[in-house]
Amino acid sequence: MAKKYVYMFNEGNASMRNLLGGKGANLAEMTVMGLPIPKGFTITTEACTEYNEGGKVLSQEMIDQINEAIEKLEEIAGKKLGDPKNPLLVSVRSGARASMPGMMDTVLNLGLNDISVVGLAEKTGNERFAYDSYRRFIMMFSDVVIGLNKSKFERLLDDYKESVGAKYDTDLSAEDLKTITKKFKDLYFEEMKTEFPQDPKEQLFEAAKAVFRSWDNPRAFVYRAMNDIPYSWGTAVNVQMMVFGNMGDTSGTGVAFTRNAATGEKKMLGEYLVNAQGEDVVAGIRTPNPIDRLAVDMPEVYKQFMDITERLEKHYKDMQDMEFTIEEGKLYFLQTRNGKRTAQAALRIAVEMVEEGLITIDEALMKVEPKQLDQLLHPVFDAKALKEAKPIGKGLPASPGAAAGRIVFSAEDAKKWADDGERVILVRLETSPDDIIGMAVSQGILTVRGGMTSHAAVVARGMGTCCVSGCEEIKLDYDKKEFTLGGNTYKEGDYISLDGSTGNIYGLDIPTTEPEISGNFEKFMSWADNRRRLQVRANADNPTDAAVALEFGAQGIGLTRTEHMFFEEERIQNFRKVILSDSVEEREKFLAGILPYQKGDFKGIYEVMQGRPVTIRLLDPPLHEFLPTTDAEYESLAKEMGKPVSELKLKGKNLHELNPMMGHRGCRLAVSYPEIARMQTRAIMEAAIEVKEEKGFDIVPEIMVPLVGEIKELKFVKNILVETAEKVMEEKGVKIPYHIGTMIEIPRAALTADCIAEEAEFFSFGTNDLTQLTFGLSRDDAGKILADYIDKNIYEVDPTARLDRTGVGQLMQIAVSKAKPVRPDIHLGICGEHGGDPSSIEFCHILGLDYVSCSPYRVPIARLAAAQAAIKNN
Amino acid sequence: MAKKYVYMFNEGNASMRNLLGGKGANLAEMTVMGLPIPKGFTITTEACTEYNEGGKVLSQEMIDQINEAIEKLEEIAGKKLGDPKNPLLVSVRSGARASMPGMMDTVLNLGLNDISVVGLAEKTGNERFAYDSYRRFIMMFSDVVIGLNKSKFERLLDDYKESVGAKYDTDLSAEDLKTITKKFKDLYFEEMKTEFPQDPKEQLFEAAKAVFRSWDNPRAFVYRAMNDIPYSWGTAVNVQMMVFGNMGDTSGTGVAFTRNAATGEKKMLGEYLVNAQGEDVVAGIRTPNPIDRLAVDMPEVYKQFMDITERLEKHYKDMQDMEFTIEEGKLYFLQTRNGKRTAQAALRIAVEMVEEGLITIDEALMKVEPKQLDQLLHPVFDAKALKEAKPIGKGLPASPGAAAGRIVFSAEDAKKWADDGERVILVRLETSPDDIIGMAVSQGILTVRGGMTSHAAVVARGMGTCCVSGCEEIKLDYDKKEFTLGGNTYKEGDYISLDGSTGNIYGLDIPTTEPEISGNFEKFMSWADNRRRLQVRANADNPTDAAVALEFGAQGIGLTRTEHMFFEEERIQNFRKVILSDSVEEREKFLAGILPYQKGDFKGIYEVMQGRPVTIRLLDPPLHEFLPTTDAEYESLAKEMGKPVSELKLKGKNLHELNPMMGHRGCRLAVSYPEIARMQTRAIMEAAIEVKEEKGFDIVPEIMVPLVGEIKELKFVKNILVETAEKVMEEKGVKIPYHIGTMIEIPRAALTADCIAEEAEFFSFGTNDLTQLTFGLSRDDAGKILADYIDKNIYEVDPTARLDRTGVGQLMQIAVSKAKPVRPDIHLGICGEHGGDPSSIEFCHILGLDYVSCSPYRVPIARLAAAQAAIKNN
Repeated sequence: MAKKYVYMFNEGNASMRNLLGGKGANLAEMTVMGLPIPKGFTITTEACTEYNEGGKVLSQEMIDQINEAIEKLEEIAGKKLGDPKNPLLVSVRSGARASMPGMMDTVLNLGLNDISVVGLAEKTGNERFAYDSYRRFIMMFSDVVIGLNKSKFERLLDDYKESVGAKYDTDLSAEDLKTITKKFKDLYFEEMKTEFPQDPKEQLFEAAKAVFRSWDNPRAFVYRAMNDIPYSWGTAVNVQMMVFGNMGDTSGTGVAFTRNAATGEKKMLGEYLVNAQGEDVVAGIRTPNPIDRLAVDMPEVYKQFMDITERLEKHYKDMQDMEFTIEEGKLYFLQTRNGKRTAQAALRIAVEMVEEGLITIDEALMKVEPKQLDQLLHPVFDAKALKEAKPIGKGLPASPGAAAGRIVFSAEDAKKWADDGERVILVRLETSPDDIIGMAVSQGILTVRGGMTSHAAVVARGMGTCCVSGCEEIKLDYDKKEFTLGGNTYKEGDYISLDGSTGNIYGLDIPTTEPEISGNFEKFMSWADNRRRLQVRANADNPTDAAVALEFGAQGIGLTRTEHMFFEEERIQNFRKVILSDSVEEREKFLAGILPYQKGDFKGIYEVMQGRPVTIRLLDPPLHEFLPTTDAEYESLAKEMGKPVSELKLKGKNLHELNPMMGHRGCRLAVSYPEIARMQTRAIMEAAIEVKEEKGFDIVPEIMVPLVGEIKELKFVKNILVETAEKVMEEKGVKIPYHIGTMIEIPRAALTADCIAEEAEFFSFGTNDLTQLTFGLSRDDAGKILADYIDKNIYEVDPTARLDRTGVGQLMQIAVSKAKPVRPDIHLGICGEHGGDPSSIEFCHILGLDYVSCSPYRVPIARLAAAQAAIKNN
Repeated sequence: MAKKYVYMFNEGNASMRNLLGGKGANLAEMTVMGLPIPKGFTITTEACTEYNEGGKVLSQEMIDQINEAIEKLEEIAGKKLGDPKNPLLVSVRSGARASMPGMMDTVLNLGLNDISVVGLAEKTGNERFAYDSYRRFIMMFSDVVIGLNKSKFERLLDDYKESVGAKYDTDLSAEDLKTITKKFKDLYFEEMKTEFPQDPKEQLFEAAKAVFRSWDNPRAFVYRAMNDIPYSWGTAVNVQMMVFGNMGDTSGTGVAFTRNAATGEKKMLGEYLVNAQGEDVVAGIRTPNPIDRLAVDMPEVYKQFMDITERLEKHYKDMQDMEFTIEEGKLYFLQTRNGKRTAQAALRIAVEMVEEGLITIDEALMKVEPKQLDQLLHPVFDAKALKEAKPIGKGLPASPGAAAGRIVFSAEDAKKWADDGERVILVRLETSPDDIIGMAVSQGILTVRGGMTSHAAVVARGMGTCCVSGCEEIKLDYDKKEFTLGGNTYKEGDYISLDGSTGNIYGLDIPTTEPEISGNFEKFMSWADNRRRLQVRANADNPTDAAVALEFGAQGIGLTRTEHMFFEEERIQNFRKVILSDSVEEREKFLAGILPYQKGDFKGIYEVMQGRPVTIRLLDPPLHEFLPTTDAEYESLAKEMGKPVSELKLKGKNLHELNPMMGHRGCRLAVSYPEIARMQTRAIMEAAIEVKEEKGFDIVPEIMVPLVGEIKELKFVKNILVETAEKVMEEKGVKIPYHIGTMIEIPRAALTADCIAEEAEFFSFGTNDLTQLTFGLSRDDAGKILADYIDKNIYEVDPTARLDRTGVGQLMQIAVSKAKPVRPDIHLGICGEHGGDPSSIEFCHILGLDYVSCSPYRVPIARLAAAQAAIKNN
């Protein structure tokens, strides 16, 4: 049997969303519910996919089925498309599975041409209406289907209105509209060198194809990338009989929400325009009336409207966002969908609907998009100010929030300016650990290179600071202290604003507002906590971050990166001496100077966490990251170490690596310099024993060995750790339990997880490195590559942000299934950036991991995502 | 039942090599054959492993079994260990599965002490002999078991000889030897602050433990690493009744080969010393007699000797290397083993033994170590000159051969000096594509960093040029044009010599000799070709290399790296313009300038290969590798392009990457700049069509897309290639077949090989990158890490040189088993450096690949290794 590409509304229902798109499925559902819906049909998303992949041609089967549907519609309507006396007019709208701005806009009044417009005028006895409809159609068709810029039509209309002294469209007479129609058609001819299409079938097929093509346009790619929507979904096309809000004062059109989309309050919110078509409401030319006025204007219609909206909300069990039209006193619904809402509103609606008995707790938990919770935790732009601002460019939304401040180009300048009370935005090609102090005092961070897990992105998320990364369009000149973007030059001290949730960059100072957390949040999150199986830990490198994490509900620390601790001023000097030493003895001497600081860090974290698990990772980055950067620093070191500057510099230079990400780092450092691992283990164990003695918390340190790829590597390092830990406990005369585990971040570790599980008590999937290596893609260099790849539909999402289940996930699966038989009680977690991404968290749930660990500001997201994963995979 | 740790010689045989070691198994075999072998027993290799892994303690079971064996030996001999009247004396020797220099030397005469030496003198009526034996024992035990430096004993002996006017040891009287024995014991006491051990059992157990520990010493690690011997094999200990060559003029000791180890000639070659013990022959104090003299000295013994050696060669079906002793006219064999031989000898012996009907062709093929063939293809040091030279340091044996010349520190200087007729050695921290011209004119290349697959190593092997890489001990100062190594400073212009087969570096000019290839080579290699299933291709980037490859027997080109072609002078300027262009149009213009050159390259290769398959890989390295390096170059480009220098420099700077190995390279370039792939495809196709027309060869180009990790990536690039290829064929009005395939070098490609096989007609495993990514180890930065890892027994071999079957191999296995069901006729090969490594080639055979591809100079190795793989895995 031939594939069915076209469904009449009464052949579908809400469950057919994937095939009919959201709009089509809802129109079908409402039709089946018996609501007043103009009749029509839907061309499926499958047709879209076949069209786009098949050389952009509608197959004969599709054409036949569309023609057949039109005939049915003509029969129902008792009108014919293009009929000179009684023409059928239709609207054409796109409708994907998920709501998607950036898709094709609506085309109304399709079916009009120079002949049928006359018939319409005669049939309705309303010539003004007929030409109003025709001129609207020409403009919409030209804009939306053909791609002519709408503004030329609008200017033409505005000029004409001015010439006749008309303020609103409604001031125009039938003759005026006839003239405008003529002018529009002339404009079309001028631009296209061909007449405006007169064949309604041609109009219809062109419109349908334009909808399909709009799935393929750049805006759609960007939107899908940002919202994790796969290309393969496609969009459907809805063809629906026109009803007219522009037939006089008993006609009108409007939109409404069943609850307040900003606050969540249970109160109908909407507005409508008398004698208008849909786009007038959106365009904002006339000020619409609040929906309450309908009670006064048309009480009967109002009552019917309120009844239906209540029915819809109960039916869909969610706040509804609806479009309606009143044609000469008769109410029609054109669309309903679950309404978009702010995070605050989402929480309130979810909680109140449970209280109203409308939905279950599980349903409530599924109603809030985890990523939305970011809005509750970070500053946002003042909505009004934002509306007026135009972005000057766009990077990757690397760390959420809004930030505005003055441009600086170095960490030092950031510190200096911030100390002077300035708000600053740090702009860098990329950041390095050297920049951390500058990053900490900045409102936001903007980088030219690097993806969602670049150094800048990871550190900024950890700090809860807004960051836009990988804006490759920027041409940055450190020497001149300026950059160019979008044709303009921005100098040190100029104001810019960053939106870390969208990646938008603005060339001015946009005010921001701090978020508020309501009581609904606590209640909602406690539901999530009860529902999830995955534990949620946080990545925190110091007591402050640990405290933030705890406040956000973290159940432990899944990753303490010890290296960040080495950058603080008192220690870096000592650590540089370690690196530039010539012998084990010399290194041990300088390490002894770091031990008290390192121990202090761990004690601080243990105290905050009060006995909750804390996983501490041994030193990970290549040593050259810690090297001096200035001559002065080398000179001061040389003096203190009693060595020639030239010797130290040569030693430093020799530490340089071509591919540091795959260089001398991780446990490789512990193999080459066991004394560093010994010092760290001593600090970890002494801190645990002292906190137990001083505060009474039972600390069970989890020592994590990074970058293991071979079991003998882990054995070697584990021997050092165990030896040191036992020695410390003997010295202190105290025995405490401790665990030794490893990161799984090297493909070979995953492939040999059966061996590695023999020695490791826990695995923590380091999916940042694992993704880099599985893809062979350096996250610090991925900016341009990812941009090209997403543009060209090679990657649907950034794999450094959302875990790639196919490749990286396959390795994780291999690791889990090899490790479990060897050590059934092995504790499994993830501490890569994916630990805070909802889709990735779901995958971790499916894999059977025990916990996810993410940056503190992502903990609430992870808690909710874990609950949703449990619900979805029940 | 208790584990058996000790075997009497008559309990074993030659097949028990793994358990008894080579020496022990052969002693057992000869015992069973009924040859005159002094009785004894072997302590197994398993005991060694348990000893070394179990805290270096002999278990009670081992001790019991050794005591029991001693009792049996005492019974057979009718003597007792330490007996004051009739003492049993034994030798103790190590013996691993494979012959291994660097292991513990022999201890003879064990069992002597101050009392039994008197008994021995009386029993034999030969006091001189008794003390000669005792003083030898004291020195050997002190040196070999205790680790006292032998030279102190030797000096003492020499001083004494001088004082009494003795030239040879044989000039010393019994009294002299008594005095020396006393002096040796005093020296022992002085050094050790304890008496020389008098208990023969203690002597024996200490000697056995010393053998076991010698498996754990640094020399052994280095040797094993170089020869791919796993640590887990362990070594056995052989304890054997002494027979004495030092009992007068009817006694003697010697070594012999059944054939000439240097040339392979079938003629007994050996030498012996009258009235001497084994170590005298090796030490070279007296000049030994040729074995022929034995026919004159002791005709009966000679006849027996010749009979037995012939029997041994027939029995073992290989040239034998034997040790023997004559005790008062009675012949004993102490050892036999397959003799080491030069490559020339190995070939001749293998071929002649087949002709003699002694072995089958398969057996002959297994007799030659594939890596030995290198000796036939590269210069070697003059043996005599080499013997006198001491290495000043050691790096990795990155590309075989011997080279000597004057030090230069830059490619430019190499070129300049070479143009002046100097032989030069290029010394660099690491090499980059910029250095290629300099590398091509150098005798040898020495680098401080980088492993066996670093740029220097790969390029040098391709050129057949000697290279030692990763000598991290070198402190190099480019500014001063000098480096220090082993405490000495070497300046530009100083002579050094490199041995690329061992990694040794010498501080002087050692003469080299060119290799000769005999007729045996052709015959032997044709046997290999008949036997192997794997095809052997070569990696060649130009017609010259292709011609070398063809001469060495390559059946096609498995990898043409197009990037090397871009570095030649006329093209680099154009390609730099491409890189620094602002638009597609600009890039296309400059690419058009490169097209003729690129096409010329391909035509040259096609013509050489005469229709054999040629796989051409699209541009792979990151673009910044091609950037100008000097201001002058930037200025000349700026002038030609009509752009400001500053703009070009900024653009160049922006191309810099933090981890270029995982950066914007491979097919990612083709995604970002399809015009480059279009130009290359055009060159590939036009060249093929023109060569077909001009020369009549049917060329079937194989276009290879590098660095694919996702099927859509390959699809995207394949579309460009197909479109271009079809267009070229249409323009030319000719249709030729061509194939499109991909490298499998990204872990994700292996993991998703089922998808990728849908689009790829062939896979070529790029195991260089695949190893780097699977291990997360940059080959350019691996030098120090690998050194530490092999030192510390974490890696047994360098995974960049020998394919890691556990991890990388697992990914390859996954790829093959996923791809085959999707495309049963998929053509599978390997083009990483492992393609020339015998163990890796065996793995490729097992995996069922169709071909291996390696550098031209490794083609003969690969042909033989492929044959051996087929034989071993019959």
